[in-house]
Amino acid sequence: MAIYNKCKVKNVFMGKLDYGKDILEELTNICEKENITLGIINALGAVQKANVGFYNQETKEYQFQEFDEPLEITALIGNVSLRDGKPIIHAHITLSDEHDNAIGGHLVPGTTVFACEFEIIELDGPAYKRGLDDVTGLPLWKM
Amino acid sequence: MAIYNKCKVKNVFMGKLDYGKDILEELTNICEKENITLGIINALGAVQKANVGFYNQETKEYQFQEFDEPLEITALIGNVSLRDGKPIIHAHITLSDEHDNAIGGHLVPGTTVFACEFEIIELDGPAYKRGLDDVTGLPLWKM
Amino acid sequence: MAIYNKCKVKNVFMGKLDYGKDILEELTNICEKENITLGIINALGAVQKANVGFYNQETKEYQFQEFDEPLEITALIGNVSLRDGKPIIHAHITLSDEHDNAIGGHLVPGTTVFACEFEIIELDGPAYKRGLDDVTGLPLWKM
Repeated sequence: MAIYNKCKVKNVFMGKLDYGKDILEELTNICEKENITLGIINALGAVQKANVGFYNQETKEYQFQEFDEPLEITALIGNVSLRDGKPIIHAHITLSDEHDNAIGGHLVPGTTVFACEFEIIELDGPAYKRGLDDVTGLPLWKM
Repeated sequence: MAIYNKCKVKNVFMGKLDYGKDILEELTNICEKENITLGIINALGAVQKANVGFYNQETKEYQFQEFDEPLEITALIGNVSLRDGKPIIHAHITLSDEHDNAIGGHLVPGTTVFACEFEIIELDGPAYKRGLDDVTGLPLWKM
Repeated sequence: MAIYNKCKVKNVFMGKLDYGKDILEELTNICEKENITLGIINALGAVQKANVGFYNQETKEYQFQEFDEPLEITALIGNVSLRDGKPIIHAHITLSDEHDNAIGGHLVPGTTVFACEFEIIELDGPAYKRGLDDVTGLPLWKM
């Protein structure tokens, strides 16, 4: 069975990221500054360029691919939890190119803002701490 | 005009699904166990394989396609309501392959967890009951 | 640094749009009718046809493309704020075709409902007003 907790909504931080900044770093900065340790993230907008990961489930290593072109963010979905006592964001991004074709993957540094509007729904709940999961090789929640 | 109600947020169930389990079945199990009858679902992660549907609007039948390969879940968006008195999840999924190309569709059984982090935002509101909609042939809300 | 505010969740409007109607217009109608001036939007479903935009970051003009075919909405993510004192919706949409291939972009009029289930999470917060951003040429939030 799944492992989960019942939480409550606390605040919603809504705003926009600065032009040219790194999306993942900036969202993480906001969580650190506001002491957000648990939450849900949604965003949309456009990027100057993107860097996304695909996890190879056999080798247990990420494969990264850079897209050095303007792209629309059609969906950015993620969450905030804790790793080594600090807020960490896990987010996946769906992007579309000039022909409207969609690509996507695990959001990593190197994805830079053209325009990005986000909401972080801060939750009240127990600590969600990431640690190495042996089966997948990923930093999953240990609860 | 659209048909809708004003609801309130009650709880947020946040957690992870077990490796190898069926995403749709597990999310439904959680709703049944926690008696969640109305809500919003968000998830991300990766699947071992996927099964998604495309609704043929002419024949009014779903066409299903299996993707027997590891894929990232770039976005899973859905809702919880009632069908025949039991919680039913309606969710659509966007996935990306090893080349980061995105595919997607209606989530059906046969989509299995590699890793999956979800939130169910439980709502307080009137009962949303699904029943056959003659125009589309789909089980839509009767309100 | 990013520009943002701390808001609270007020109500959640959940429902379905009418067959054949324009998605963006209908969602905007609901915000106007219910006086929703700040919020988060999520939706899924299917369209009869779609019209989406890609913003050319060099020319600062949108390029629009029509898809005159049934498509699944795998994710619709957006927000509500104010422009010239009236509620305006900014939303991006991810769609999948009969082969499950995904496309996406900026949602514009011309995207019509086959079936569409939505939630608008209304927020309590300061006014978010859109105005021309010189750097991007887009109507971004002035806060």
